[in-house]
Amino acid sequence: MLPTLLLLVQAVAPAPAEPAPLDPVAAVRAHRERNAAAILRDLAALLELPNVSSDAAGIRRNAAAIRARLEARGVAVELLTLPDAPEAPPVVLGRLPAPGAERTLGIYVHYDGQPVQPERWTFGPWTPTLTDRALEDGGRAIPWPEDDAQLGPETRIYARGSGDDRAPIAALLAALDGLAGAGIARTSNLLLFFEGEEEVGSPHLARYLEAHRERLEVDAWLICDGPVHPGRRPQLVFGVRGITSLELTVYGAARPLHSGHYGNWAPNPAHALARLLATMKDDDGRVLVEGFYDDVEPLGAAERAALDALPDVDEALRDELALADTEGEGSLAERLLLPSLNVRGLAAAGVGPQAKNVVPATATASIDVRLVRGCDPARMLDRVEAHVRSQGYHVVAAEPDRATRRAHPRLARIERRGGYPAARTAMDHPLVERLVAAAGRAAGEDVVRLPSLGGSLPLYLFDELGDAPVVIVPIANHDDNQHAPDENLRLANLEYGIDLMAALLTIP
Amino acid sequence: MLPTLLLLVQAVAPAPAEPAPLDPVAAVRAHRERNAAAILRDLAALLELPNVSSDAAGIRRNAAAIRARLEARGVAVELLTLPDAPEAPPVVLGRLPAPGAERTLGIYVHYDGQPVQPERWTFGPWTPTLTDRALEDGGRAIPWPEDDAQLGPETRIYARGSGDDRAPIAALLAALDGLAGAGIARTSNLLLFFEGEEEVGSPHLARYLEAHRERLEVDAWLICDGPVHPGRRPQLVFGVRGITSLELTVYGAARPLHSGHYGNWAPNPAHALARLLATMKDDDGRVLVEGFYDDVEPLGAAERAALDALPDVDEALRDELALADTEGEGSLAERLLLPSLNVRGLAAAGVGPQAKNVVPATATASIDVRLVRGCDPARMLDRVEAHVRSQGYHVVAAEPDRATRRAHPRLARIERRGGYPAARTAMDHPLVERLVAAAGRAAGEDVVRLPSLGGSLPLYLFDELGDAPVVIVPIANHDDNQHAPDENLRLANLEYGIDLMAALLTIP
Repeated sequence: MLPTLLLLVQAVAPAPAEPAPLDPVAAVRAHRERNAAAILRDLAALLELPNVSSDAAGIRRNAAAIRARLEARGVAVELLTLPDAPEAPPVVLGRLPAPGAERTLGIYVHYDGQPVQPERWTFGPWTPTLTDRALEDGGRAIPWPEDDAQLGPETRIYARGSGDDRAPIAALLAALDGLAGAGIARTSNLLLFFEGEEEVGSPHLARYLEAHRERLEVDAWLICDGPVHPGRRPQLVFGVRGITSLELTVYGAARPLHSGHYGNWAPNPAHALARLLATMKDDDGRVLVEGFYDDVEPLGAAERAALDALPDVDEALRDELALADTEGEGSLAERLLLPSLNVRGLAAAGVGPQAKNVVPATATASIDVRLVRGCDPARMLDRVEAHVRSQGYHVVAAEPDRATRRAHPRLARIERRGGYPAARTAMDHPLVERLVAAAGRAAGEDVVRLPSLGGSLPLYLFDELGDAPVVIVPIANHDDNQHAPDENLRLANLEYGIDLMAALLTIP
Repeated sequence: MLPTLLLLVQAVAPAPAEPAPLDPVAAVRAHRERNAAAILRDLAALLELPNVSSDAAGIRRNAAAIRARLEARGVAVELLTLPDAPEAPPVVLGRLPAPGAERTLGIYVHYDGQPVQPERWTFGPWTPTLTDRALEDGGRAIPWPEDDAQLGPETRIYARGSGDDRAPIAALLAALDGLAGAGIARTSNLLLFFEGEEEVGSPHLARYLEAHRERLEVDAWLICDGPVHPGRRPQLVFGVRGITSLELTVYGAARPLHSGHYGNWAPNPAHALARLLATMKDDDGRVLVEGFYDDVEPLGAAERAALDALPDVDEALRDELALADTEGEGSLAERLLLPSLNVRGLAAAGVGPQAKNVVPATATASIDVRLVRGCDPARMLDRVEAHVRSQGYHVVAAEPDRATRRAHPRLARIERRGGYPAARTAMDHPLVERLVAAAGRAAGEDVVRLPSLGGSLPLYLFDELGDAPVVIVPIANHDDNQHAPDENLRLANLEYGIDLMAALLTIP
């Protein structure tokens, strides 16, 4: 495969494109300082375009506007569509070669945004507004600058999609301009893959990637999405957990029964469910399902070192969340490198004002299972189901009939939901180390290296395209009101994003 | 106390009022057959009066109508009120001495009914209607008889309160008329205590009984309410379970957390609640709370014998309810003679379509505890609470503050609800044996003797008045749509009720 060959070459020879004598980050920084007003106005023009995933016309206008901006920088753009799913928002696919470069970086961005409730926005979601600081800190609207007026780092740009996820587009455009203006050569070819329906769960992403697989060969994927570390330190993230889930229903009598007339005689499914769940996880947070941890790929030395270097946020989080203790041994970041079995909901009859004196007829637990690298979603659910059987339960997949209920004293229904695996990139991959170093140059400090997010994104799809490492490269501030009213982008984060793009596009 | 003295006297001498040569049941039966049309029309006149507990004017009209009917039979009637609670429906208190009798039977009835939704009734709740059989069996309305036309046993009288609980009033009135017409002396003085707010939980019953305690001395209480055995066999019931309840809430973080970002680190209160509940009751239905069964008064030989003689309904019920098995050892009737701990509801975040990927912030179980004779409600909740503490929980009674949450890794809130104890009368009490024999004479077969209902009524209040046995004397059919639209009374049950009253009023 291309990446391995390339890296072998690079290990014995200087990078094909020599770094220019001028420092790329410094050059692009000077460019963005001189052109701050223009950069902001161009971003605002993009943010004026409604980009809700389900708004087909708005999505098309966004794709066209992005295409125009990319083509103005020499990018060859195609709008990919799926012949058998014409309703799918187009993928904006761009190619920008770097003379002499054999390496290609893939840059993923999504240009769609979450739905909005305009009445809950201070300025309206599609009226990009500049404020001197965050609204919750007393920020006030200020005029868009006409010249290169100095704006403080806490300046905010309010609009849907400002942080999530149009900031990387603005950063890339400004970095390309800055490098070109300074005559600095990029060191990698670029493949841009901008998706238009991430906020509705990327329903066509797998098919887009599969349909265009042979055109998507890159040496690394940079997934430009999500926020930086809550402490405002820049971070790179090297994985996500996968997820799957199930609904577990335990059955009692065919109807709710009067707890006086039948309580102590009719089996109580709420109590049975409690006993069943209790067998699944111990007091220390260890999942007792046989084989639950068997497929977990152990961490490498680089991941261990990165974990040790992470800012310790646990005690602050415990305080914020009013927790006396947390599950198991190890920090939050370490715990998120294990699969989890989480009871996300319980229901049987009613509690509080809805409580009635009944023996419930059924009791249900909704369980989500987070996966780490190595865990197959279906196999993990197989294990949970085997555990339920091991507790004496007859397991069915649909509502049981009378005969089934009469035949099995312990009867459970398991409804499996979909899911997908985790993704995690080795942190000691040589190209990854260059990306990390580049981010550090842009940030002016070591960046936080997070082995995995606890949350889930379908990055496995990019993993499965080949051997290219997949690195999440966040730009937005963590307090950007992502998915909420008054979404905003902090100016210092946009500036970091521009510098970061400059550094990434010129890695040795 | 009076009853004991009386019974000693009775044990060595014939009853003070010799049974009349004419069999009272036969005489009253002849009376009700000759006067069926008049008896039905008088019941219908009563049933035309709306009697919803909260309808003060309707309740007053009912009390007045009942008073008039009782006074016409020589009963001295007072309408009791509570000076400090003038809104409380009056108790209709009646006294009817029997010449020469030293024994007094107390007869409890409630004359109020459940709320109605008139549009859901076939004929309207206050339009008493006769049908040739039950509506669900194809019954059709028939005219009220003008003469003593023969009506089949499945004839039904549709109206709110026909079965629950105005049937015993009609039965008593007809029995008094029949005995008087035949010149048969009653063998007991009667004390009638007719309540007007049973269907809203008897909120003033305790105060009525306490305020008039010294006027309520009887030798036995006959609680005329509820249905006969589902197999249509007449039954007497000698107890009820008491009840109390609590809400148990287990705490996690101060807010619901993203299960990806925090799952496996943030404690999950749904899982903790499951583990806690699992320690409370084993797979065989045995409650594991220390001391839970300690105060249970053992059954006597008479109760054991009665249990053995009960019709075996368990397998039929299991089939009806689609159950493969039931909890513990023993029949339904035996199980209901033990205290129970029933999880009547569970709730944490959402399941099914409401499921979200969260670690819930709290999880709640609503638990009702049924009590048998010997169990004190507060002491039983003390034991449950002690059990929760024994599992390492810090227990609070109200919403915990931040400091409390930070201090206690296992934190539970227990909100106690009110409750009251069980009641159970010894089945080998000599007067009880006479009542049972009388019911058998009226029924023409041995009646079912049920040591206790599984359900709860505040009969302990009658228990606490003195040593008089308290016996539930049901008349209504079990399929009377009690509390529901189309409530009805089966004619054969009214006839049994009249014969039963005749027999009870003339026990030796």
